[in-house]
Amino acid sequence: MRILISNAMNLPAAGSPTVGSRVDIGIEDGKILFIEEHTSPDAANRLQQGPWDRIIAGRGRLALPGLVNAHTHLGMTMLRGYGDDLPLMVWLQERMWPVEDQLSPEDIYWSALLAIGEMLKGGVTTCADMYFHMEAAVQAAVETGIRASLSRGIQDIGGSGLRGLEEAAALCREWQGAADGRITTALGPHAPYTCSPGILQRVADVAARLDVPIHIHAAETRDEAAEIAAKYGRTPLEMLADNGILDVPVTAAHCVHLEEGDISLAAEKNVKIIHCPTSNLKLGSGIAPVPKMLAAGLTVGLGTDSAASNNRLDVWQEMRMAALLHKGTNEDPTAVPAGRALQMATYLGAEALHLERVGKLLPGWKADLILVDTDGLHWQPDYEPIGRVVYAGERGDVSLVMVNGRVLYENGNLLTIDEELVRHQVEKRAQRLGLLPADGPNGP
Amino acid sequence: MRILISNAMNLPAAGSPTVGSRVDIGIEDGKILFIEEHTSPDAANRLQQGPWDRIIAGRGRLALPGLVNAHTHLGMTMLRGYGDDLPLMVWLQERMWPVEDQLSPEDIYWSALLAIGEMLKGGVTTCADMYFHMEAAVQAAVETGIRASLSRGIQDIGGSGLRGLEEAAALCREWQGAADGRITTALGPHAPYTCSPGILQRVADVAARLDVPIHIHAAETRDEAAEIAAKYGRTPLEMLADNGILDVPVTAAHCVHLEEGDISLAAEKNVKIIHCPTSNLKLGSGIAPVPKMLAAGLTVGLGTDSAASNNRLDVWQEMRMAALLHKGTNEDPTAVPAGRALQMATYLGAEALHLERVGKLLPGWKADLILVDTDGLHWQPDYEPIGRVVYAGERGDVSLVMVNGRVLYENGNLLTIDEELVRHQVEKRAQRLGLLPADGPNGP
Repeated sequence: MRILISNAMNLPAAGSPTVGSRVDIGIEDGKILFIEEHTSPDAANRLQQGPWDRIIAGRGRLALPGLVNAHTHLGMTMLRGYGDDLPLMVWLQERMWPVEDQLSPEDIYWSALLAIGEMLKGGVTTCADMYFHMEAAVQAAVETGIRASLSRGIQDIGGSGLRGLEEAAALCREWQGAADGRITTALGPHAPYTCSPGILQRVADVAARLDVPIHIHAAETRDEAAEIAAKYGRTPLEMLADNGILDVPVTAAHCVHLEEGDISLAAEKNVKIIHCPTSNLKLGSGIAPVPKMLAAGLTVGLGTDSAASNNRLDVWQEMRMAALLHKGTNEDPTAVPAGRALQMATYLGAEALHLERVGKLLPGWKADLILVDTDGLHWQPDYEPIGRVVYAGERGDVSLVMVNGRVLYENGNLLTIDEELVRHQVEKRAQRLGLLPADGPNGP
Repeated sequence: MRILISNAMNLPAAGSPTVGSRVDIGIEDGKILFIEEHTSPDAANRLQQGPWDRIIAGRGRLALPGLVNAHTHLGMTMLRGYGDDLPLMVWLQERMWPVEDQLSPEDIYWSALLAIGEMLKGGVTTCADMYFHMEAAVQAAVETGIRASLSRGIQDIGGSGLRGLEEAAALCREWQGAADGRITTALGPHAPYTCSPGILQRVADVAARLDVPIHIHAAETRDEAAEIAAKYGRTPLEMLADNGILDVPVTAAHCVHLEEGDISLAAEKNVKIIHCPTSNLKLGSGIAPVPKMLAAGLTVGLGTDSAASNNRLDVWQEMRMAALLHKGTNEDPTAVPAGRALQMATYLGAEALHLERVGKLLPGWKADLILVDTDGLHWQPDYEPIGRVVYAGERGDVSLVMVNGRVLYENGNLLTIDEELVRHQVEKRAQRLGLLPADGPNGP
């Protein structure tokens, strides 16, 4: 499949070359073949560089790398809004855990389709998922065409750690690099407070042997930090370091409650961080010290976390939140500038997931891109393109989404997902789980 | 004009009666005539209660009161994104002030149309504007059909206070209650640090005499609080109290840097507060102590502030931000529950502007309402209607907007604003002001 996007607006700060403000983008075999100035002398010849299977008119559209949702739990999407505004332990113990126990692979499959549908419509081309019944998530990712980094969550509770690790490793062995490389895998030890030192050490060994990264939650809450301090006399990140987790490529989600030393430790060990500002706010966890992380040279991506704690899978929102939040809490309007937030939402997120050549519009990089309609009143006037994207733009402005060179969403239509069926299945399954009355939310 | 909205979803927590989950809403003479259960025995007869000039199918749509943007500056909308991420004084002194000096009434008129167009599309039915050349803002509000509380900003710099007050009073005398009551007015002394005690006292006198409220910025930044403390040995709110401003109905925007005593003072004087979370974050001002305000029984509305410091006029965003931000900073997931945020975005905002019978779907109240499409994947499943609206919903879901019984926006189309012309005029004016190159942002 060879596609030409003609005369789109270009935004070099988002990771495309500074060839001009209007560009043609050639795509072949899932990769970007060229991105060149539209008005260059060659432009007129480009149509003849075909045959193109398709030419997409980019006029009036901004081309951006696809957004990266670097930490979420696809299977929880059908729990969106099931228990808002509750104290954390009530929410977990009375809402999330009892339902999660009952989720079938089919529930997780439809939940993942709901998630992927929402994400694609919002310009997300890559997601990282950590959950269970991962064969269902794999199937959803393979079928829909999204790029996904998948890990089976491993909790070491009541001796479940080894079985979890076996399943997690099997996922990696079976699916790493599948679907033309769209599917990558990681090992997913859940968190320092749910995994014993013994299991963490084994996970690190297996990750090294399988050559896959580790994706883990760390230092999400004040309680976690206190528990790890009481148990081991260490910070969560130090505890992970003690058990070899930071000696392999690792992605640590949240990192809200860090000590000064943790940031240098993370820098030294090249830990990739996923900032989940909305989820951390909504659950009352706190605010991660992102400006300090960036100052220390850490790679920081963005994640929505699950729809149960957000309740959106909207990377535009996380990008804007990342750009706004730290300005306010640090009383510094120059903290986390818009350009940095846009990078966090694109190639820094991909880098944090240890993906290669994802998140920039450069020749040879994966053809994961979106076209954005900037005609809306809320985009006017046009002074500063990066600020427009981050502060004024929204997911509803996305008009086309391409992953690995394939168009998955266009002008309101998902091309690989039957929205109506997803809605129906999710409702039916919520009813079966007793979360919705059998006659639907609004009565018969 | 008599309109029937048939079979819409109802959300009592947002200020409609608990008559049922699906309702019919009758509208006459700009007011809500009835809101009754759709499946009530009378329902079948309701079509015969006509003649209706129009029947709107509400099926699958959630009816909500229109949103209230209780603090903005319409005339600044054409400065959206002109200087993002700069230190506050650089932004003001090098970007905002030099341009504001040059704005003509026509610039402000088109800027206001840009603002109102964006707001109506996002379900905002009422706005509060404080700026200058207010005849242009009046014209825009009258023509477009939005509800507006307008105040001429009064700054007492180089003796400009008295002239400002005269103009401000003239605006009130001429326009209070105009356009079937859609236009209300207030006096707008800018802030404690830009108005002398003498002018504040006069403003308070004139407000009492004209029987209009006062709209003022207060305690927005740490520097303001320090300056007022150094000059008067008082907090900004105490300084306003000293000069009579709190003895008339008053709306105070921001209130970020309050002392304990300020909150009791505000409660005692019944000061209405406008929380502008995004603007306070973006400018690095800080975070207002909203949970404490609510605990003290204060009325708190929401404002976007201007598009220059937001950069959106999106009350959905402020509502969600208000619900999220205080949970995170207080590490308390029960702070500012979703239902409270929705009230702040609707009737509490109207109450904070001293408007009567605005912001609830009750018989006899103004017919300011919106219909919201909840079919999108991002709304599924349907467990908890309030959380869905606040955390999952977004302005793009608004399908119909009515103000004072008149439909102003429907299915993507503004019915009182020529979008194309607004875009063109704003661009031309930005060029004239030297803010955009004469050949447009993207070259010839």
